[in-house]
Order: sequence, then C-alpha cells, then structure tokens
Amino acid sequence: MTKKDYTQVVEKIDQIAEKVYHDFEQFMVPTIDLPKRTKSNIHFDEKLNVWKYGNKKTQRTAKSSKGAYMLLRTMYMTDFIKNMIHSEKSSTLREMYYISEGWDRAKLHSQNDSNLLAEDLEVITACMREDFKLRPEEDGARVMGDLVVEEVTRNKKKRRIHCQEDVGDAGYSIPYNVEPEKISFKQMDVDFILAIETGGMFDRLVENGFDQSHRALLVHLKGQPARSTRRFMKRLNEEKNLPILVFTDCDPWSFRIFASVAYGAIKTAHISEYLATPATQYLGVTPSDIENYDLPTDDLTDEDVKSLKSELTDPRFQESFWKQEIKLQLKMKKKSEQQALAKYGLDYVTDTYLPEKLVELGMLKK
Amino acid sequence: MTKKDYTQVVEKIDQIAEKVYHDFEQFMVPTIDLPKRTKSNIHFDEKLNVWKYGNKKTQRTAKSSKGAYMLLRTMYMTDFIKNMIHSEKSSTLREMYYISEGWDRAKLHSQNDSNLLAEDLEVITACMREDFKLRPEEDGARVMGDLVVEEVTRNKKKRRIHCQEDVGDAGYSIPYNVEPEKISFKQMDVDFILAIETGGMFDRLVENGFDQSHRALLVHLKGQPARSTRRFMKRLNEEKNLPILVFTDCDPWSFRIFASVAYGAIKTAHISEYLATPATQYLGVTPSDIENYDLPTDDLTDEDVKSLKSELTDPRFQESFWKQEIKLQLKMKKKSEQQALAKYGLDYVTDTYLPEKLVELGMLKK
Repeated sequence: MTKKDYTQVVEKIDQIAEKVYHDFEQFMVPTIDLPKRTKSNIHFDEKLNVWKYGNKKTQRTAKSSKGAYMLLRTMYMTDFIKNMIHSEKSSTLREMYYISEGWDRAKLHSQNDSNLLAEDLEVITACMREDFKLRPEEDGARVMGDLVVEEVTRNKKKRRIHCQEDVGDAGYSIPYNVEPEKISFKQMDVDFILAIETGGMFDRLVENGFDQSHRALLVHLKGQPARSTRRFMKRLNEEKNLPILVFTDCDPWSFRIFASVAYGAIKTAHISEYLATPATQYLGVTPSDIENYDLPTDDLTDEDVKSLKSELTDPRFQESFWKQEIKLQLKMKKKSEQQALAKYGLDYVTDTYLPEKLVELGMLKK
Repeated sequence: MTKKDYTQVVEKIDQIAEKVYHDFEQFMVPTIDLPKRTKSNIHFDEKLNVWKYGNKKTQRTAKSSKGAYMLLRTMYMTDFIKNMIHSEKSSTLREMYYISEGWDRAKLHSQNDSNLLAEDLEVITACMREDFKLRPEEDGARVMGDLVVEEVTRNKKKRRIHCQEDVGDAGYSIPYNVEPEKISFKQMDVDFILAIETGGMFDRLVENGFDQSHRALLVHLKGQPARSTRRFMKRLNEEKNLPILVFTDCDPWSFRIFASVAYGAIKTAHISEYLATPATQYLGVTPSDIENYDLPTDDLTDEDVKSLKSELTDPRFQESFWKQEIKLQLKMKKKSEQQALAKYGLDYVTDTYLPEKLVELGMLKK
C-alpha cells in the first residue's frame, strides 16, 4: 500500500463505523452483513480457478449480547488499526489480543477471537490483514536467484538487494509485508520460480548452484507456505510473467501444498485472487517418478490413504494428470521424499532429475 | 574449519579405520569404545559450567551381528564424509540415509540410525557434525544489529554483510555452518546480544529500532535454538566479549531455552564447550515480572507444574535467583508470554520494560 492506498483502507474501515452509526440514528439495531465462512459456502470458481465464498450471508447483530460484543470489538479494532496506520506501526494478532486488555468490555477472550475479527475485517473490506498492518508470527521464506528486490526498510530507505550477490548462502528472507509499497522487483535474469518444500532440498540446490546453472529463482516453501511467500510468488508471476514450478515430497500433504499455491486454501478463500496462482505447475516428486526413478519409499499410512481419497473428489485435483497420479499412488501404496533422490548421489537431483522434469514440462529444450 | 583443519578431521576419522584394521591384523574382534550417552552418564561440569559425559563406556563390537553392522556402517560413513570433504560438498543426514541405499549390507534402516552414527562420530573424534559436512534440516535464525559478518559464499568469495545496512527488515539469516572458515566477525558497534524467543517479538524490536537505540544485536532464537544459532552467539561471546541476554516467555519450557543457550543440552553434551555460553544471563520475562508489571497470564497446566518441579532439582537451575523465581511461579500458578507486555501499548517493551531490565542487570546506567 502506498500512503494514498492506506487512505483507501481507512475509508473502508470508516464505512463500517458509519454503517453502525447510521443504524443508531435510524433507531435500528446495528448490524453488519458478511459472507458465511463455512465449508458449505465455499466453491471453486471455475473462471478464476481459485476458491471463493458463495452467496450465503451471516450477520453480526447487536440483537444478541454476543453479537453486540462482536460489534463493539470491531469498533475498537478499527480504531486500533487507524492508529497504527497513522503512526506507521504494525502489530501481531497476539499483541492486539493483549492490547485489548485496555478495551474495557470489548476485551478479547482468546487469541482465536482476534483471528476471527481480523478475518471479518478482511472479508468486509476486501483488504488483506497486511493492509491493516497486522503481522504474522511466522518467519518469511528464503529466496536465492538472479533477482534484484528493492525493499523500503523501516528507516524509509529504498535498498536494492541482489538475491545472489548481496546475500549469504542462506539467501534473502522475505519480509512479512510484500505489497508494492514495501517490495518491488527490479532487474531479473531468471526463467522460472522453483518452489521447494524442504530446507534440506533448498540448501542442496543452492550448494549445487542450480539457480546459476538453470536460470532458476529458488524459493523455500517451508512446508505449507506463509501468506507472504505465496503473495511474493503471485506478484512475480503477474508482474514478471514468471512460471511457478512446485517441487515437493510425494505424499498427499505435499500435494496440498501445491494446491494452496495454485488455487488457494479454504481459510483464505476471501483473498484467493491475491494469494493463489492458478498457472502453477507441479514438477514432482510424482507417484510415477517413484516408479520411473525407482525411489526409496515408505508405506502409506491409513491417514495418507484417507487423504488421497478425499483429494480424488477435491475440485482442485480434477485434472486427468492428478486423477491418474493419485490412483497410481493408491495402487502402489507407497510414498517418497524429495531427498530420496540422493539414492543416486548428491548431484543426481540437479544433474539428472530436475533437467529431465524441466524437459517434460516444456521448460527446457533437450 | 580451514583446509588445514579439514586435514585434521580426515586424520581423526582415518584413525577409526586404522583401529579396526589393526584389530583384524591382530586376529582380534574389532571394537570401538565410546562414552555411554545415557542420562546416568551425564553430569554437570562445575568447572566448565556445562553438561558433560562421564566415564562410563560402551563398546561397538563385531562380536554381535548388530555391532558388526554398526562398525560396517561407520566405515561407509567415514568414507562418505571423506568424499564430501574432498569434493567440497555437504549433505543432510536425510540425504546420507538415502545414499546408504548403495552401501549394500551397511544400508541404514531408519533415519534414527543416521543420527546415532553422526553422534558416535562426534563423540569419538571430538569434532562437530559441521566438521563432517553434515547439514541440519532446520533453517538458521535471523540477526539484526550493527555487526559486519564476512561470509565465504558457495562461490568461494568473501562477502561482507552489515546486519542492518545490507539486509532487509527480516535481517541476516545465519547459515548452517558458522565455523571460522565460513564466518568471521568484522566491525561491530554493539554492547550485547539480545536473544529473543518469538518471531513476533523479534519483529517488534526491529520495527521499534531497539537495535539502533540501545546498541543491541538482536538474534531470533525461534524457540529451542538451532546448533548454528548457539554456536554463532558463543563465538561472538568469546571473540568479541559480547554478553548474551535471553528474553523469552515466562514458562518452564522457555527457561529451558535459556538453559540450553547457557549450559547446553543433554543431547549435545559431548560438544557443550562449543555450543554453550555459561555467562549468559536471563533477562525475562520472570515470574517476578508478572507481578511487578501486572502482566496478563494463563494458568499453569499440570505439565507446566511437573516441569517446573523437575527444574528445581536440575543442576542448571541451582542459583538462588532461579530457585526463588521457580518457587514464586509454582505459588502463583500463572505463566505469561513476552508479547503480553503489549498490554501497555506497542512501544512499552522498548521504551520501558527492556530499559528497566537492562538497568537491573547492570547493562545500562539509569
């Protein structure tokens, strides 16, 4: 958000207070409408190719004391956010929870309350919590590749960081806020993003110089990726036209990591268009790879099997590619880790496996 | 390790093979002696102020088939390590586990096997696994402050990174290897290290510029700190005489984070002198702070109480400070989080709490 954009955020949250004020003026019980955030009200938007909320509405109304408290908390929270925007501060949800000690009867009673309120505000205003200056607890992911990021630091200085030449071997750490007022992308000499599940594999590709030899921007997903990581990749895809390839373990949980990068997650369905990149491709490890590369495996657990079966009916896995691969995995009853490629030596993944897969995906000529 | 130092590592692991070879030559059953790594053989070294192994020995012997396989695996592993040192590569334990697919009958049967073998080698040679080019899976912690680190990058170039002026707001990421051949400390203008448990609090101090206003080097511990984080701080303490202050939540698990930074952990008792910094001080949050600052609290769970009671007999918590604080906490039956200080606003921790605690610890004049 630029300063001007923050004005828009303030306008949007002011509208909430105006609505409640208006209700009072009309001698009506104050209410706020918002979409239901339950599984029954989530659908897969075929046009946008991401998860979205449907038309079912729910209402926060002061008719009940519970609803009245929710509205009161919302008022305090919007005030808190306006103060942060004004004083150029940010806070975690946990800090806000403790700050609510001073909100009298609007005090939050659990950290879950603060999360629910933040989601409410996101849904009502169509802004993201980053716009409200609310920070996540989790650390940002690491990046390595031929890309210059310009970050506006806490001292309001613009700093250009080359994600190979200006960083240590641990790479550039993505900050919590990756919106245009904080981060912009400058020179770049890469062909695609390779998003990697585990730190061990990220460090392997860095050590082997895969970013240098194959014009790749390596991004460490750290398991289920943080919002900032998904948003960082989404922006690179949109602004720089960079394809995203996802490289994970071969099990149902890793397939969901891919799906959340590509199509979004139920929890963040209201901001899918900001976070999800439908053009994302799955590189591997696929169940077919287990056979083709004769990889070391573990047996699927009952949980794994259940999860694979539920993916067969998940709208995000309806392509024939996924149908075939998931059925194959259920048949072979095996799973594998991306580091299992080390069976053939520490360089096999960068010298053989990844180049072969890139040819398969049409990203590299034979 | 410098190149010369790696020669010493190779010599040490060669001695293991020599011992086994010598046993064969003498028509003896090959054996390797090593200290027992059980709780009964761990004692608190009063002179060094860290955990150490005692004199009880255990033997890997080829008399049993299990022992023979262990010795065979050790031989393959030393060979693998020598190859890595020769080719300037490194690997995770997980990669080594998969590489052992090619070790014929010495194949590792679980990832726990590879961990045990790595510990064996550390204990026998008095080297660290970093010396063997074995990398951890976990990510390094983040650092922010007026310190210039010189890192030898994968391309063998020396790169100086100022941990405020050359990094984004997420800070400098500590690489997995922080030994002198990889990392050296150059200019520095800080008075102490403030080691912080949670990412939320680390980001708070960065946003509030506490590193700038109080000449502090901020280090994010990320819960129980990684080996590289502890080693990084230990080296700064030894080479630059920097005091370490630990700032965590107020609960028994956080006290253990302090203890592992100060005195080491049972799991890494054989390398305590490399990792532990006995001069480390605990800054807070203390049970007294909960009373003095009237902080929001949660009730202690049964697990918490059990853990506090066991700390009362833990040699690492025998100072009167800890005895008093732990007894106070057992009496009040409450715990608190470091972010609870936000009760008084987002700046309270940097404007009031930390300066007061620094005065208490004699690190700051009133």
